[in-house]
Amino acid sequence: MKILRRNKEHFKIGLPPGALVYTGEQSLKEVEITIISYDQEDVYEEKITYENLAEHLINKKKVLWIDIVGLHDVDLLEKMGLDFGLHRLTMEDVVSIDQRPKLEVFDEYVIAILKMMQCIDKESEIDEEQISFILKDGILITFQERPGDVFQFVRIRILENRGSIRKRKADYLLYALLDAVVDNYFVVLENIGEKIESLENQAMEDPSTKTLAALYQQRRQLMELRRTIYPIREVIGGIEKNAEHKISKDTKPFLRDLYENTIQVIETMEVFRDMSSGVLDLYMNSLSNRMNNVMKVLTIISTIFIPLSFVAGVYGMNFEYMPELTWHYGYFYVLTGMGIATLGMLGFFRWKKWI
Amino acid sequence: MKILRRNKEHFKIGLPPGALVYTGEQSLKEVEITIISYDQEDVYEEKITYENLAEHLINKKKVLWIDIVGLHDVDLLEKMGLDFGLHRLTMEDVVSIDQRPKLEVFDEYVIAILKMMQCIDKESEIDEEQISFILKDGILITFQERPGDVFQFVRIRILENRGSIRKRKADYLLYALLDAVVDNYFVVLENIGEKIESLENQAMEDPSTKTLAALYQQRRQLMELRRTIYPIREVIGGIEKNAEHKISKDTKPFLRDLYENTIQVIETMEVFRDMSSGVLDLYMNSLSNRMNNVMKVLTIISTIFIPLSFVAGVYGMNFEYMPELTWHYGYFYVLTGMGIATLGMLGFFRWKKWI
Amino acid sequence: MKILRRNKEHFKIGLPPGALVYTGEQSLKEVEITIISYDQEDVYEEKITYENLAEHLINKKKVLWIDIVGLHDVDLLEKMGLDFGLHRLTMEDVVSIDQRPKLEVFDEYVIAILKMMQCIDKESEIDEEQISFILKDGILITFQERPGDVFQFVRIRILENRGSIRKRKADYLLYALLDAVVDNYFVVLENIGEKIESLENQAMEDPSTKTLAALYQQRRQLMELRRTIYPIREVIGGIEKNAEHKISKDTKPFLRDLYENTIQVIETMEVFRDMSSGVLDLYMNSLSNRMNNVMKVLTIISTIFIPLSFVAGVYGMNFEYMPELTWHYGYFYVLTGMGIATLGMLGFFRWKKWI
Amino acid sequence: MKILRRNKEHFKIGLPPGALVYTGEQSLKEVEITIISYDQEDVYEEKITYENLAEHLINKKKVLWIDIVGLHDVDLLEKMGLDFGLHRLTMEDVVSIDQRPKLEVFDEYVIAILKMMQCIDKESEIDEEQISFILKDGILITFQERPGDVFQFVRIRILENRGSIRKRKADYLLYALLDAVVDNYFVVLENIGEKIESLENQAMEDPSTKTLAALYQQRRQLMELRRTIYPIREVIGGIEKNAEHKISKDTKPFLRDLYENTIQVIETMEVFRDMSSGVLDLYMNSLSNRMNNVMKVLTIISTIFIPLSFVAGVYGMNFEYMPELTWHYGYFYVLTGMGIATLGMLGFFRWKKWI
Amino acid sequence: MKILRRNKEHFKIGLPPGALVYTGEQSLKEVEITIISYDQEDVYEEKITYENLAEHLINKKKVLWIDIVGLHDVDLLEKMGLDFGLHRLTMEDVVSIDQRPKLEVFDEYVIAILKMMQCIDKESEIDEEQISFILKDGILITFQERPGDVFQFVRIRILENRGSIRKRKADYLLYALLDAVVDNYFVVLENIGEKIESLENQAMEDPSTKTLAALYQQRRQLMELRRTIYPIREVIGGIEKNAEHKISKDTKPFLRDLYENTIQVIETMEVFRDMSSGVLDLYMNSLSNRMNNVMKVLTIISTIFIPLSFVAGVYGMNFEYMPELTWHYGYFYVLTGMGIATLGMLGFFRWKKWI
Repeated sequence: MKILRRNKEHFKIGLPPGALVYTGEQSLKEVEITIISYDQEDVYEEKITYENLAEHLINKKKVLWIDIVGLHDVDLLEKMGLDFGLHRLTMEDVVSIDQRPKLEVFDEYVIAILKMMQCIDKESEIDEEQISFILKDGILITFQERPGDVFQFVRIRILENRGSIRKRKADYLLYALLDAVVDNYFVVLENIGEKIESLENQAMEDPSTKTLAALYQQRRQLMELRRTIYPIREVIGGIEKNAEHKISKDTKPFLRDLYENTIQVIETMEVFRDMSSGVLDLYMNSLSNRMNNVMKVLTIISTIFIPLSFVAGVYGMNFEYMPELTWHYGYFYVLTGMGIATLGMLGFFRWKKWI
Repeated sequence: MKILRRNKEHFKIGLPPGALVYTGEQSLKEVEITIISYDQEDVYEEKITYENLAEHLINKKKVLWIDIVGLHDVDLLEKMGLDFGLHRLTMEDVVSIDQRPKLEVFDEYVIAILKMMQCIDKESEIDEEQISFILKDGILITFQERPGDVFQFVRIRILENRGSIRKRKADYLLYALLDAVVDNYFVVLENIGEKIESLENQAMEDPSTKTLAALYQQRRQLMELRRTIYPIREVIGGIEKNAEHKISKDTKPFLRDLYENTIQVIETMEVFRDMSSGVLDLYMNSLSNRMNNVMKVLTIISTIFIPLSFVAGVYGMNFEYMPELTWHYGYFYVLTGMGIATLGMLGFFRWKKWI
Repeated sequence: MKILRRNKEHFKIGLPPGALVYTGEQSLKEVEITIISYDQEDVYEEKITYENLAEHLINKKKVLWIDIVGLHDVDLLEKMGLDFGLHRLTMEDVVSIDQRPKLEVFDEYVIAILKMMQCIDKESEIDEEQISFILKDGILITFQERPGDVFQFVRIRILENRGSIRKRKADYLLYALLDAVVDNYFVVLENIGEKIESLENQAMEDPSTKTLAALYQQRRQLMELRRTIYPIREVIGGIEKNAEHKISKDTKPFLRDLYENTIQVIETMEVFRDMSSGVLDLYMNSLSNRMNNVMKVLTIISTIFIPLSFVAGVYGMNFEYMPELTWHYGYFYVLTGMGIATLGMLGFFRWKKWI
Repeated sequence: MKILRRNKEHFKIGLPPGALVYTGEQSLKEVEITIISYDQEDVYEEKITYENLAEHLINKKKVLWIDIVGLHDVDLLEKMGLDFGLHRLTMEDVVSIDQRPKLEVFDEYVIAILKMMQCIDKESEIDEEQISFILKDGILITFQERPGDVFQFVRIRILENRGSIRKRKADYLLYALLDAVVDNYFVVLENIGEKIESLENQAMEDPSTKTLAALYQQRRQLMELRRTIYPIREVIGGIEKNAEHKISKDTKPFLRDLYENTIQVIETMEVFRDMSSGVLDLYMNSLSNRMNNVMKVLTIISTIFIPLSFVAGVYGMNFEYMPELTWHYGYFYVLTGMGIATLGMLGFFRWKKWI
Repeated sequence: MKILRRNKEHFKIGLPPGALVYTGEQSLKEVEITIISYDQEDVYEEKITYENLAEHLINKKKVLWIDIVGLHDVDLLEKMGLDFGLHRLTMEDVVSIDQRPKLEVFDEYVIAILKMMQCIDKESEIDEEQISFILKDGILITFQERPGDVFQFVRIRILENRGSIRKRKADYLLYALLDAVVDNYFVVLENIGEKIESLENQAMEDPSTKTLAALYQQRRQLMELRRTIYPIREVIGGIEKNAEHKISKDTKPFLRDLYENTIQVIETMEVFRDMSSGVLDLYMNSLSNRMNNVMKVLTIISTIFIPLSFVAGVYGMNFEYMPELTWHYGYFYVLTGMGIATLGMLGFFRWKKWI
């Protein structure tokens, strides 16, 4: 996750709009195209080349999911855009991986672009990947940057005919995939929540510069996340509202439900933001408390010993006539006096609740 | 109360939407079904099994309240959803106990889901439980997670025919139950208000790390509460506005009144939020004040004794020729000088208002 | 002023809605009913009992103001509600003294509920009292909790026929009374403004824990006030907009004017809120400044005397061979050296702008 | 500038609404009435008495600007209100100098009230004066509290026929005067901007309690200003939108332009608010930095000399058998050791970047 | 970039509105006029004088871009405004270089004014320049203050016929230029992002007053930038919405895309604002941490040596009868005792996690 989508600007300044330039890193040699074609009776999954795609488009009664992994082959994508009648800007958006999540509704098709997030392992960063959905009659095309996605369970439901997905159309498939994406946001947030709690404990018990840096890092991540997730509400809300001609009435309640999940994601994120501010306060207060304790120790030691040292200093003076020095028990009197003074001081500190 | 509704995600990722999975803990062996059937003349309360429910549905003139406690028996609930003609997602929402408060209005029925809150005892946490209301013609179905609710007074009013509840229909019963839920929010808030006041006193008089932790905990609880209560405004406002076909004209002023109570709950919560920020400020200032006092003590002690010690040190030097040392009253002159210096210092501190 | 309207909830949980329960304290033995009946020619004021009220209702050409003080006699109020054709909830709102300011517009009448505020004396708390206005054709009924109100000047204007009040109808009377209520908010705010200024001076010149506590108290009062006054804008704005059938065209510009006064009240309150935050900052900075000064004194004293004491300590060592000790002017050399060092230190502090 | 518009409330509580009471100070013996009457060919300026005003109202083809300075003669103003057919509340608003900026649109006329601000000299406070504009067909009446205004340049443009003002109607004159008022806000803001910059330098280089007080004062002034200027946006936006019957189509683009200037004023003010918060932060940080430096000096001095003094103390002990004391070079060994320790300390501090 | 647009006010107070006064600095001797005229087949670029412009206006089928650099020759601009039928205020806005970004839609033409920003070199300030676009049928006129702009790539695309620009009309040219302006905002933001990161490192590792000043400067720059960039959203959104008669249907998707880029610019800026607040927090915390460490060193040194010095002082007293002094190993016992005490102290500090 980076704050400024640098590559885009560096690569694209000066290019005509609508020029297809892939702004990410290339992670595959070849673009992988996987199709899943299904209806209630039948299902069919295959890795194909783009040339073979045409034959799968004939049977219009089946739902066809075309999953394209790898965006670096812009010639192929350009050709595909032309074949499927997509606007130049649509294809440009698909390959610009720093796109703000957006929804565009055209007469012929609907495009939704958002970020798929996954936690690779507990320690590591969040893996963010742009994913684009194009819904066009019975066909759903998805574009991914890299292999590896959050759709495994949806594939299983289609292939093993679980739930009602095989009975429904491509709009429901779109919903199911979006749902999988949003569900993974919860996992990511859960991860963040755990980090905040651990920082909270650190801030409370052992506040160090390291805690501060981690806290700061974590706040910045939330800031980023917020910018990524906020527009998704509009995207999902917009599919229900503006893409009426592409969404069947049956699928709508599911989209509404998904929309509410998205709101829950956003609210959770806001709570985390508040919490991380709280942790910062906690950290600063912890630090103040420690400082306070350090100061108290210093003060107690100084307040007890500085006067005593003074007394010792007085009797270390070399005046010829100092009557106390000649007393036989003078030394012991002084020691006793010092002992009493110390006890008095300790009593005073206890009364002040410093010890 | 947890921030991230973990179980849901853990249990449900990969399941088809609309799959009924109870995401809470099981607290009863069997689902308990209690019906109360009443009209102006007659009232009837009974614990029944689901098999016996059918016979109670015949008399459509009476109001029927079906109270279901325990959500773990998803097969039963699935059957019930089918029998009553409820949408799959409705039943899924009922059993997902981490649902955001929501209202769904269908042609045949209305479902409202919110959180019921109770303070078990002063010290303990707030007990939060999801409660769902389904209003369908003359029938009101309520789903609770655990035994124990806030509806005791409503039951008494029905059974003992107090107020006008027996003269009215199921929509009024819905109102009465919602009112009981919202009324309990006030009790919970009162409890929180008392905690804040106690923390305020602690912050003022004896600020310690424990206070800080408690304060922080309390702020977090308010954050949580806010997220739970805020959407309820929409739910209750929505019943009046969007569920016109299910709510009689007579019940509307009551719902409006309830809506205003909800706003009062939210405003009170906001005041508490502000107050708890105020307590944090107070705490930090208290701490600063204490630090200041510690520093003053240190400074007073140091400022008085360090110069005196220096003088004593001077006369402790072993130079062969130090004329003062041979004076007969040299020692007493020095002691007197030290006394005067101390008094001067004390005067200076008093003038500076340090003591 | 309390934050949680406790009594209400304690007394009323479990009661049917619309049950009349007075939630305040009883301050009068008997409910006092005063009527003022007037038209352009004639005016008539009398304390009556409820039984005698009927005869005054006959002459519908005069404006009739029924002022009821004391809300504890719920039976009487219930009867009155029935006689005047008021909704049960209206009467419930009247006797629930913790009501949020509100406006309800019915076909037959309009009810406005708000808080009347007065400063009893400079030191004391603000006296808050709920006041309800029911406007029904030629009749205006006001309900107060306790004797003593802010309407004295309105009464004088009616009785002595000052201004245009006697030429106008009951809607104008409602306006005149609301105006008196809002005018008193300005007095209350003025009082608060003076307190803030005094706290500001304290924070600047003599910041102590007492200042902090007062400041905190004052912020809390503003928070409370804000909650009380904010909804009044809606109430007064609503009378003009929603109660068209009860308000004559002539009275509208006055209500608009009143509405703008209310906005001015709210804006002033917001400025006070900002100011009191500013005072808190000032306090904290004052404290920091003081701390700084304390630290400087400590540092100056320590920095001067610790090195000197060290020198004295060196010459207090008992080594057998320390050549300086045998010099005749050794002692005076050392004293002179100490003097020069001290002057150097003082110069350094002056250069650092510490003294 | 005062926060609570005190006089108003003190003078007016208890008076009937619409009663004309001037709430400011009287600065002139007599109300000054100046008329400027002009059309494209001709222009005419004269100080007149109210009695002579009538004759100037005859020629309806010319634009007539009646400028009234001094609001204390309420009888005159009342008469004037009647003569010109103004609502009582309009005249009340004119004489209440604590009026919130407002616009009232009547069928016959439009009244706009706002604040005219001027910087008398760099050091002094901002001079604020209420100014009311009444636009009625070919006549524009302005009411000012005191002599001295910001309209000099407009007068010159009329009298010397510069620009297009003489070709246009009274609505354009209203625009030109409003433009002069808003232009002066920029001057006032520029002044404030300079103060903030000077405070910024102070906070950076020489933070003292005086800086803090000035900063606080300055923030409060901005708060005040904000409350005065914010509503002006509505006023000027409202003239274009709501007073369509009084504003010619030609004048509208000018009003739109003026509206944008007002927004620029408000935005500049917001930037100043942010900046002054920034200066406060800067001040606090500057102070922390100084404190830090003070602490470092203290620590360096203490850390170097306290251990050395201890060593000196050890060799000042009077034990009979202390072998080092009898060494011939014991004293020099000790001095050398102390020197080495000091150098070590200084190296440590340099490593810690304290010196 | 300055906060208060001073020159404007200084130069223009007292002038009639619509008077053309150039408020910037003159950077060219002569106004430079460059035209680019093109259609799909042909393209033609030439530097001309205003007198020669007329001949280029004849061919209405080609797109004509008139680029005017230098705004000081107000007579020329005034003439030009008349020739092209522009409103006086339009020309005034063009030459007032402190104009807030704005869009004005007239029947005959559309004017958009915004700021072009460039980073001259990494260290230097951002170079801001006002740029105005007037779109009138087939003609696009741009006004720049100084030579040097961000349109080089657009010129190349036209001259070398890259992309589709030559096939499209003047509205697309407007889009292409706006796109170039907005693209450069990203470069500016990237620059700022790098500065923030560098400040972040400084704040973390070496917080000094210099960091604070730089941070403060940087925040102020962001404040300024925000004020400049925010209104651009409205401008670009407005072209699509309000200038329907000037924008072809084909160009709209491009404008929508540009609008989303603008939103991304604004969001990035907001993230930077948050981040720079975060850096300030980090700075303050870093400082606190350092202070804390300084205090700890002071406390450790004092706590160890003050008690030891006291002991040494005790045995430096000159009492005649002090039995320990005569013990043969007294001195060594004391030294050993001191060593043990020191070790104890160090253990205590380690337990407290201070060292």
